[in-house]
Amino acid sequence: MMGFTFNGISSGIKGEGVRDLGMIFSEKPASAAALFTRNRVAAAPVVMGRERVRQGICQAVLVNSGNANCCTGGQGLKDAVDSSKLAAAALNIPDEFVMVSSTGVIGAPLPMDKIETGIAPLVKGLGPDGIADFADAILTTDTCRKVAERTCRLGGREFSIVGMAKGSGMIMPDMATMLVFVCTDLNISAPFLQAILQKACDRSFNRICVDGDTSTNDTVLCLANGMSDAVVENDRDLAEVQEMFNTLFYRLARKIVKDGEGATKTATIRVKGTRTPEDALRAARTVADSNLVKTALFGEDPNWGRILAAAGRSGAAFDADKADLFFGKIKLFEKGAWCGKEAEAAARRQMKAQEVDITLDFNDGPYTDYYMFCDFSEAYVTINAEYRS
Amino acid sequence: MMGFTFNGISSGIKGEGVRDLGMIFSEKPASAAALFTRNRVAAAPVVMGRERVRQGICQAVLVNSGNANCCTGGQGLKDAVDSSKLAAAALNIPDEFVMVSSTGVIGAPLPMDKIETGIAPLVKGLGPDGIADFADAILTTDTCRKVAERTCRLGGREFSIVGMAKGSGMIMPDMATMLVFVCTDLNISAPFLQAILQKACDRSFNRICVDGDTSTNDTVLCLANGMSDAVVENDRDLAEVQEMFNTLFYRLARKIVKDGEGATKTATIRVKGTRTPEDALRAARTVADSNLVKTALFGEDPNWGRILAAAGRSGAAFDADKADLFFGKIKLFEKGAWCGKEAEAAARRQMKAQEVDITLDFNDGPYTDYYMFCDFSEAYVTINAEYRS
Repeated sequence: MMGFTFNGISSGIKGEGVRDLGMIFSEKPASAAALFTRNRVAAAPVVMGRERVRQGICQAVLVNSGNANCCTGGQGLKDAVDSSKLAAAALNIPDEFVMVSSTGVIGAPLPMDKIETGIAPLVKGLGPDGIADFADAILTTDTCRKVAERTCRLGGREFSIVGMAKGSGMIMPDMATMLVFVCTDLNISAPFLQAILQKACDRSFNRICVDGDTSTNDTVLCLANGMSDAVVENDRDLAEVQEMFNTLFYRLARKIVKDGEGATKTATIRVKGTRTPEDALRAARTVADSNLVKTALFGEDPNWGRILAAAGRSGAAFDADKADLFFGKIKLFEKGAWCGKEAEAAARRQMKAQEVDITLDFNDGPYTDYYMFCDFSEAYVTINAEYRS
Repeated sequence: MMGFTFNGISSGIKGEGVRDLGMIFSEKPASAAALFTRNRVAAAPVVMGRERVRQGICQAVLVNSGNANCCTGGQGLKDAVDSSKLAAAALNIPDEFVMVSSTGVIGAPLPMDKIETGIAPLVKGLGPDGIADFADAILTTDTCRKVAERTCRLGGREFSIVGMAKGSGMIMPDMATMLVFVCTDLNISAPFLQAILQKACDRSFNRICVDGDTSTNDTVLCLANGMSDAVVENDRDLAEVQEMFNTLFYRLARKIVKDGEGATKTATIRVKGTRTPEDALRAARTVADSNLVKTALFGEDPNWGRILAAAGRSGAAFDADKADLFFGKIKLFEKGAWCGKEAEAAARRQMKAQEVDITLDFNDGPYTDYYMFCDFSEAYVTINAEYRS
């Protein structure tokens, strides 16, 4: 990875010795693209980020965990801007080239004193090997660091992509925020990068479900500093690079689902044979978001009735009398009827696995879509009911 | 209650001694109105019921618990029709005047032998005092019987309404079915009754949320046999009767929410001051359906951030900087800012109550709506993950 340095330190926001302040710095201003939460209640860094990313340039990212800087009004916005100024001054770059992200407690003012004190050691420690420290600094109740890296070739020229994510750990006292930062030394314009980002997210971060809630702080930010020799020059390059990003994003998204709060296993629901693409997505999303399906997954129960019922209320058009349902390769439901006890026993054995594949085929059209999700355990409730106690 | 008799017995579907077969019989054919699940996967009794209710007449209802007769194909539909024939023969009324309902296991064939054997004692035991036995026979994992009764006056003439409900107990192995049967000796035409039913449901059963899943068997059926002197003759009468039904339906709906799976307490979210009626409903429903809000309720945590975030992703148009949020009469969030620790401590005390009122005021328009919901405890997960073990 050419030209990027990283760091993550403990600034005291989350208590002594816990990394809570992270930075990404690019030697050269990078093409920037980002996607933000669609929640109407957006945190201050998201409000500022939406503005700044329009210029398509970013050189540094400052991230804190432990405080979401959300529902903090005008002061929150000022704090976000001031943080970016502190970082810019220490790095000797323009303010507008700095993006900030926050995740943590909602409603509490950002502890500017800790950020101010933290910036100098943060900048001082920046290095090419700081990825792990950065990735740790953005976590909240995640149980593990989430990093994915790839070395790719475009037109015979090598470049790298690294992605660092957090989610869906719970944030005291609030919701599961997802933050993803992707750096590459690929040479690509900001509009191309934005197009790639959107498509890669649609097949990854927009296809996962932990608990159906979306955060006020969700951000996916991508920087491409063009310091490798690999250049995206035309649509063919773009298509090639799209595939590479898709794979990396998919791997990161899987890491998030696997680390879902209280999760003990994950599943993918594939909906096939629908009359429209929307029907496939709608049915897959509703199944992935169903508490009954998720608790059955936790109970290792191949509960096809709950899956059909969730698809049935999704708004997708289908006829149960034409539909087939598989757990792995075991067909449990065929054209409106249960396949019997032996099939169910075989499916039940498949449910013991860490990852379960479920396929619902409407046999009614050419479209297909999928969603990844995790199970729903007592621990989810405990985590989310008792975190303040 | 003039002219209605009821009964509930054990037919052996759910094992010895457990009531699982219920009947309502009206001395005279009654005006009938019904609402059924909007789930695309509909149980056989729902498919048959949709047809039969069109004639606007019903004289008897046969309900079994322990088996949903759902995803049972052509045989299931035949079993539903055959059940109605058995009941009709025993009661000496036309087949088409019998409606049937089922709730329980999905995918297993209806045990017709048990129903056939059960019909004779069921009919024999019909009596005006059989309401409790009927209400027990339709339960699944509900923890309590759900009955609401009212004596009303219309134009000085007395009539009665009784409602019997089940939900949202879980059904082995499947989803939370809601069944509601309402009988009245009011004299009212079927179209008027259908109009009243729709409106009363909109303010009651369509404003409650246990886990966001809807069943393949949900049914609300209303019979009015006209045996009292009270007659609905005009729009003024209709409006008066509407209020009476609304109250009874609301009370039944509250009983269902209170008995939600694993529920320890209930809450009402009222959304006020929205620009459109849809925005109020959308925001209220999304808050009521949020796992994060429901686990916070269980944890007795006045977590205003989760409520705002749920409203924020609901699609309702609002500006957090104009919004106020109350727990009971305690204002916790005012025009974009947290009201501080003292307010929060006071709100936290309010959360100890069995019933919690939450008000979210967008201060942006004249509309208001509400949703009732229950909390989300570890027991919900246990019930739904382990019911087969």
